[in-house]
Amino acid sequence: MSETSAFAPLPEPPYHAVIFASLRRGPDLGYADMARRMMALAERQPGYLGVESCRGEDGFGITVSYWQDAAAVAAWKQQAEHLLAQKLGKARWYAHYVLRVARVERHYEGPEGRPH
Amino acid sequence: MSETSAFAPLPEPPYHAVIFASLRRGPDLGYADMARRMMALAERQPGYLGVESCRGEDGFGITVSYWQDAAAVAAWKQQAEHLLAQKLGKARWYAHYVLRVARVERHYEGPEGRPH
Repeated sequence: MSETSAFAPLPEPPYHAVIFASLRRGPDLGYADMARRMMALAERQPGYLGVESCRGEDGFGITVSYWQDAAAVAAWKQQAEHLLAQKLGKARWYAHYVLRVARVERHYEGPEGRPH
Repeated sequence: MSETSAFAPLPEPPYHAVIFASLRRGPDLGYADMARRMMALAERQPGYLGVESCRGEDGFGITVSYWQDAAAVAAWKQQAEHLLAQKLGKARWYAHYVLRVARVERHYEGPEGRPH
């Protein structure tokens, strides 16, 4: 991985963030495949800006996707719910999750300018 | 870890989120100690609501701290910068980081009601 490939681009604020915190449980049962599909679907959505994601060894993870505006978030929510509804249910993969929709007002980066 | 201990509480929106994405590099050099101090300091700040954090094996991590309002975020920023300035420099611990300040407008949780 390059030093910045895990970071989402930084468009001019304001933009929106969907913060998805989750605790995975049990065996994979198709989770990795679903997660890949979700990311591929997100990238094709209008207003998609990027995503940042990590999961620790304890199963707790955070994925933040970034969107141009509230309309893009709403459209993505509909698509994501449709995809999940086709699957065997969220309860299968997560012990618990919290999803927050937020408006990014400003950002900073460091410790030096981001290489491009 | 209990199934919900990694999750921050869910106060009534709106509230604020500070999304800190970072790529760690090199040896620890006091990083774990600094991170613990930062969390202890955050918990004592006025307007602190909670924190969620994870880091993957690739060194990329996301920490989201939640705050009552913009004033609480500003006060925390000042405290955090003061603490960091006393240390040997952020460049020592991070290959790159991005910090975003956002206003949480709504949230959901699942797959069932959160146990308390």
